[in-house]
Amino acid sequence: MAKWIWYPGDFELYHAMLVNNRREKRGMFYSPMWRVDAPNRNMRFYKIAVLEKPEFIRVIANSPDTELVINGTKHPINEKIKLEPGRNFIKVSVFAPATFPCVYCEGETFASDESWMTATFGAGDKNVGTNEMYISPDDDPTVFKFSYKTVYPVSSERVKDGTLYDFGKELMGKLVLESAGCPPQSLFAVYGESRAEALDPENAEINERFEFTGEKTTLRSRACRYVYIGGDCGGLDVSYEYEYLPIEYKGKFECDDELINKIWQISRYTFELNTREAYFDGIKRDRWIWAGDAYQSYFVNFYLTGDKDTVRRTTKMLRGTGKMYQHINTIVDYTLYWIIGIWDYYYFTGDKDFVRDIFPETKEIWELIYDRVDERGYIIGNPKKGDWTFVDWADTANRGTVCAEQILLCAAYSAFAKICRLLGKDEGEYQKKADELAKNITRDFWREEKGAFVDCIDNEERVDVVTRHANIFALRYGVADEHMKKRIIECVIKNDAIPRITTPYFEFFELDAMCEIGETDYFSDMLHSYWGGMVKLGATTFWEEFDPTQQGNEHFEMYSNKFGRSLCHAWASSPIYLLGKYVLGVRPTSAAYKTFDVVPNTLGLNEISGRVPVLDGYVDVKMNNGTVEVLTDVEGGTLVIGKKRIPLTAGKAVKADV
Amino acid sequence: MAKWIWYPGDFELYHAMLVNNRREKRGMFYSPMWRVDAPNRNMRFYKIAVLEKPEFIRVIANSPDTELVINGTKHPINEKIKLEPGRNFIKVSVFAPATFPCVYCEGETFASDESWMTATFGAGDKNVGTNEMYISPDDDPTVFKFSYKTVYPVSSERVKDGTLYDFGKELMGKLVLESAGCPPQSLFAVYGESRAEALDPENAEINERFEFTGEKTTLRSRACRYVYIGGDCGGLDVSYEYEYLPIEYKGKFECDDELINKIWQISRYTFELNTREAYFDGIKRDRWIWAGDAYQSYFVNFYLTGDKDTVRRTTKMLRGTGKMYQHINTIVDYTLYWIIGIWDYYYFTGDKDFVRDIFPETKEIWELIYDRVDERGYIIGNPKKGDWTFVDWADTANRGTVCAEQILLCAAYSAFAKICRLLGKDEGEYQKKADELAKNITRDFWREEKGAFVDCIDNEERVDVVTRHANIFALRYGVADEHMKKRIIECVIKNDAIPRITTPYFEFFELDAMCEIGETDYFSDMLHSYWGGMVKLGATTFWEEFDPTQQGNEHFEMYSNKFGRSLCHAWASSPIYLLGKYVLGVRPTSAAYKTFDVVPNTLGLNEISGRVPVLDGYVDVKMNNGTVEVLTDVEGGTLVIGKKRIPLTAGKAVKADV
Repeated sequence: MAKWIWYPGDFELYHAMLVNNRREKRGMFYSPMWRVDAPNRNMRFYKIAVLEKPEFIRVIANSPDTELVINGTKHPINEKIKLEPGRNFIKVSVFAPATFPCVYCEGETFASDESWMTATFGAGDKNVGTNEMYISPDDDPTVFKFSYKTVYPVSSERVKDGTLYDFGKELMGKLVLESAGCPPQSLFAVYGESRAEALDPENAEINERFEFTGEKTTLRSRACRYVYIGGDCGGLDVSYEYEYLPIEYKGKFECDDELINKIWQISRYTFELNTREAYFDGIKRDRWIWAGDAYQSYFVNFYLTGDKDTVRRTTKMLRGTGKMYQHINTIVDYTLYWIIGIWDYYYFTGDKDFVRDIFPETKEIWELIYDRVDERGYIIGNPKKGDWTFVDWADTANRGTVCAEQILLCAAYSAFAKICRLLGKDEGEYQKKADELAKNITRDFWREEKGAFVDCIDNEERVDVVTRHANIFALRYGVADEHMKKRIIECVIKNDAIPRITTPYFEFFELDAMCEIGETDYFSDMLHSYWGGMVKLGATTFWEEFDPTQQGNEHFEMYSNKFGRSLCHAWASSPIYLLGKYVLGVRPTSAAYKTFDVVPNTLGLNEISGRVPVLDGYVDVKMNNGTVEVLTDVEGGTLVIGKKRIPLTAGKAVKADV
Repeated sequence: MAKWIWYPGDFELYHAMLVNNRREKRGMFYSPMWRVDAPNRNMRFYKIAVLEKPEFIRVIANSPDTELVINGTKHPINEKIKLEPGRNFIKVSVFAPATFPCVYCEGETFASDESWMTATFGAGDKNVGTNEMYISPDDDPTVFKFSYKTVYPVSSERVKDGTLYDFGKELMGKLVLESAGCPPQSLFAVYGESRAEALDPENAEINERFEFTGEKTTLRSRACRYVYIGGDCGGLDVSYEYEYLPIEYKGKFECDDELINKIWQISRYTFELNTREAYFDGIKRDRWIWAGDAYQSYFVNFYLTGDKDTVRRTTKMLRGTGKMYQHINTIVDYTLYWIIGIWDYYYFTGDKDFVRDIFPETKEIWELIYDRVDERGYIIGNPKKGDWTFVDWADTANRGTVCAEQILLCAAYSAFAKICRLLGKDEGEYQKKADELAKNITRDFWREEKGAFVDCIDNEERVDVVTRHANIFALRYGVADEHMKKRIIECVIKNDAIPRITTPYFEFFELDAMCEIGETDYFSDMLHSYWGGMVKLGATTFWEEFDPTQQGNEHFEMYSNKFGRSLCHAWASSPIYLLGKYVLGVRPTSAAYKTFDVVPNTLGLNEISGRVPVLDGYVDVKMNNGTVEVLTDVEGGTLVIGKKRIPLTAGKAVKADV
């Protein structure tokens, strides 16, 4: 099967470049705040095909500036060319200055695919890159391949000298206007995730003044639920080309608590909207790729679709190419999640090829990290070099020696050591560094009397301050021993005096830690109060931040902008992950999902049924008034009921009492 | 004065990319045979302007995806914006994916210029790049700024079903067709440097089938003297938009030998045609930038225009950016000329800023060279890594330990040592390596009994073979001591048994060496026979190769192509350099032209007058029946007549007997 080919990484670099440079704010370009790497503009590809019989091939490329040379002789592109039996050396050179060079070759017994090489003029030839989305000669790898369906407004109303359209739920895609009597004129579109935003042209994040020519007019892809068309005299047919990736959403969840079902579905839809060229943060505002947000999306994805391609693309797009001088997204923690995420990806998918593929770029990151590690072995964000110590939108330390960052560094060392071992490479000092760092973190940050790791040790305002963040990480990444775990649960997690988490982002980590220690009631409460709170306010997707104490339009404000908050933020879709892992209870217990446990938890409900994607298969779990039935088509599973461990066999349903 | 600004090097990388990817052959794209580096696609520029009074600025860029932020607030581009007194932090981010990001800012007391910075997100901010050609807001740095004038055919004649147009001399530019009764139709243009080529559609190097719409039709820039329009029914007005750089050609030469005058003028015109984005090899075929050809063009330029910008552009374009894995143009000797040429550029111009500017890229080249230097200290082309040992189109060694390459390496060490000293940097081992290598070359390649350096020491077919090439280099680059020099002149240069040089390329080096040792009669003979031979055949520009023994169309063949030879090749314009240096006799005697000698030589003629550009001034030399008059506007000169040395003073003519 023929595939479009390119220099490995160019496809991801190109689309990441476009994604990074597509942000807008009220008609103005909004530039990325980090370096954006670009793909190649010219490239040479080659293939040595040894044929037994004569064969016809046809070569096409995405630029007229293409040279096809077969056995030293130039040939035209886009024509059938006869190859003779024996060795055929096929060389295609492409200059595509505005995009990146892509080639497609159809033959009878061979075609363009991963076996083709790129000539790097001395730097070491490499196998080309491909993507399963681009396999037809009519495909264009420089256009990201979305699917579309038309959506119509559920209602419209005249407001001032225009019309407000409500599509009933958040959408991503292209606003389409057709005349139903409306004459050509200048119109003004205001996009709103909320009704209030669409009706506030001055404060809405996204708007556009455009010429309606009377012909069908399609605006660029954007997100909204509401659109206000200023100047719309009423004779307009308005619709939306909903733009999405046709990924199979294998995961399922249903129970006898309708609110939880709603939360699962809204989470799913929130995630779908943010799954595009890569996993985005939110669909209205940045549509950028942030490594922390993406890291959480990976886990949601593992419980919802099992899609590998978007994880791989996201990973490559975040990394860019070449030597790094700043952290990914400029954020110290985000660089570390990026490394950790590669091991998690392998753990859940077993895709060793990708780990090998991205290894050179993974290894190179340590140069940057070591540049920021001091003589004690601690990583310190250097604001002078543009580093941002984020952790969370919360009152946590963002300068000095921050505990949460050290725990992530420790996890990154450990993940990289495992990656090296997996690939049969020398793991160097990485595991040793992880072990030493864990010890030092305990020595320097642990306060036995507080039963907690402190936030920071050398930022005077924060010395001996305890937050949930570092302690959640200590639980999550194995820095806390059994004794510490107990103390943390008692003194931090269950201590109402320690400020609560306020972002869905850190709720992911907190609830993951809580569920891990069996505190699923806490999770159930949070589902109902936190996510349920957004449902109550009519959310059709989940938000970047939610404070139940806020009122009305206060919910929409963030970053000093009246409608700055994203109402469709990927990091809010963690219920998918949490319900899959801690209620359906499906959890890998060794790398590459070779073994896994199913530990069902009714959460106090009578009926629950659902599916978790596992490798290329699934695990179905059904709970019904005290019994559980598990069916899977992959090997390696064990149903765990209390202390009882019941082996699972592919294709054979197992029933037990919970 | 406002200038367009960009990331330093982007302008040169962009235009080099286009130049490299512009070659064609009979309607097909002809790909470059080396890596071509690309400019940035997005960039951030900034300036901190401290103002005493309020001031208006206007910022424009070459892309709508531009963000202008002043003191943290976004502003529109292309509008007047008021800055307040005090510190103003101006930040402009541009995404120009198809070209490279360029910005222009007009103010009252300040504007975009070299003082602006590019933000490299952690890699160390750099001053922007500029070019004196792009100083108006209407300029577009992505379009190379040529000048144009219209040229009409001197004759036309009907041939078969078309018309042959003769423009009377070689041209570069755009063929323009306008209807004088000719209806819209498909036409076919065949370009010829010779009449024979234009009339041979199948073998001509350049042709194009195009639609003549009846409207004015302009084809892309190409070179020719003749154009045949197939299908031309006669009702066409044909002209050429001659495309050139408006450089001041300060150099002059006139004498009472009309053939030499013609040779000088044709050399000048040959050079003019090849002086474009960079110094090209030839104007019809490659129009590529070759470091060996360019190296010779630098010397012609120093005696013809004194233009610094084209030398700088050529140097940057040849180098590209980043780590090198192959030699410049893949040729071992060409990498070495590139380094040597930087010192020569400084020697003739005193432009230390550029030497400093290109220093990082110069230094990095040694990594590549050292990769190819063996334990004996000799540089060996590695064909497996794509290296090409060229030396000349002649029967010289192109594998093994080649003497000519070692002499160039020695000269490159020495040039780099001088560059380091000039910039106040540690010269490292470079001078020592040069001295050692010179000794070893003598030990291993010198054959006292032959009075010659041998071509190669370990290529069995060539052991102890003597060619002119290595020996010319030994004279030129100071490897031969006084004794060896004498022996070489006697045993090689004046020895008819040693095969003659056949390319104008190596004639440059040979005649330079011959003139240097006072053999100007040999030069005079070559002028008349070699260059004069081309004039006799009607050349309007000088050729890539000339063999006086060939007949008719044989002169046009090369590289197994009937019209493969370039009839307008920059390396054939060396008479400009040789007449300036050895007849007018103007020669720098210390770096940066701080001192220079004028050593006139009548070449046996009665009347000679000419001008050589020196720094920003000139030296005029007039010889008339045994007297010489020298006038210069720069200091540091000495008129040298035999053993007499007469100091020159700026602005004061000095007369003497020759």
